[in-house]
Amino acid sequence: MMNTETVASARKPTEENGSARSADWDNPRVASILSAAAKCFARKGFTATTLAEIGKELGLRKSIVHYYFASKAALIHEVQSFTYHRYLDRLKEAIRNGDGSSQQATDALRALWDAIQNNKTGTGLNIEVWSAARRDAELKRRAAGLQRDARQVIRDAIAPVTQKAGPARAEALATLALAVLNGLSVTEYLEGEEAKVQEAYATFLEILRAGFDS
Amino acid sequence: MMNTETVASARKPTEENGSARSADWDNPRVASILSAAAKCFARKGFTATTLAEIGKELGLRKSIVHYYFASKAALIHEVQSFTYHRYLDRLKEAIRNGDGSSQQATDALRALWDAIQNNKTGTGLNIEVWSAARRDAELKRRAAGLQRDARQVIRDAIAPVTQKAGPARAEALATLALAVLNGLSVTEYLEGEEAKVQEAYATFLEILRAGFDS
Repeated sequence: MMNTETVASARKPTEENGSARSADWDNPRVASILSAAAKCFARKGFTATTLAEIGKELGLRKSIVHYYFASKAALIHEVQSFTYHRYLDRLKEAIRNGDGSSQQATDALRALWDAIQNNKTGTGLNIEVWSAARRDAELKRRAAGLQRDARQVIRDAIAPVTQKAGPARAEALATLALAVLNGLSVTEYLEGEEAKVQEAYATFLEILRAGFDS
Repeated sequence: MMNTETVASARKPTEENGSARSADWDNPRVASILSAAAKCFARKGFTATTLAEIGKELGLRKSIVHYYFASKAALIHEVQSFTYHRYLDRLKEAIRNGDGSSQQATDALRALWDAIQNNKTGTGLNIEVWSAARRDAELKRRAAGLQRDARQVIRDAIAPVTQKAGPARAEALATLALAVLNGLSVTEYLEGEEAKVQEAYATFLEILRAGFDS
């Protein structure tokens, strides 16, 4: 149900790491609750999901879920960060292993796409967050922060191939790449045509190279 | 409140045009109800919005709204088509006036983006539809149909500059362009950084040309 290897590497950024029990992603129980919550929320939405149901996914009593997350709101606020950082760790790993070439930059972006593709829960959860953000300023603030985190990691991935073009160009390309990931996830969620969406992403990576230093 | 000129040109596609009163977009009252509904839904979401509130926006009694739309569900199903086709009419017009050059194709895509930018309601409404589509198969079917309509219009816009590359390439680029529009709308909705998003879209149009016939 949960990839513990990935979870273990998904450390929470220090600046957000308060004293709340829920913040400890390295605690396997916290990670498993967040994983189960992501699934339930993506499937039924925030409103229709109860803490009891999330516990049930894991064979835990509601009181245990409550011990780690004082309210459903606390869980909602945490679950997207947790899911996002699992994707971003995949990308960071691909960057670390790279050689700074155009090929490596597009390989890293392909690895990120594969990570998203392998976890359909992510799209349903994102859409739920975007929708609820209208009524929940804290959720919106966090979602915007995650977008910025993701953009930063993408910018790092393309940094070696946009040095001549400069930081404004790198920023524009990273903003674009993130929008493509979000937009194509929505296309697949609505239409379910995986091959068509894959082809569009491959085409994006191809033309993206036109924006890199030659 | 409502641009009657645009509304008048936003004819419903014939195949969907049943005998229901709500289907007549050329009826100014139907158009004004759909316009007001789009605003209310984007602001408060489907669940929290009542037919009475939509009527209130227009100074109409709830019974009048009911005369045209038998239920909130009927209005929800119709409102996205109405909003989408207003955007697409803008793009079709830009294509009609074009000369088949790369410049014209990107100008048409810029006109579509400007139309989306000028109507922030559209993004809020889209997100609400994507979220509700999980629980409403008919809404999902319609949303997927609108994506296909939009892609067809974009394909028409880029057809003259992808003749050598062939239809599969045109389809991939159109799928990508639509995903960029959706994805960047979400970025702006979450982060509100209009200049950054504009820059990313300009960069997209620039690298998109790398995918056109030379």
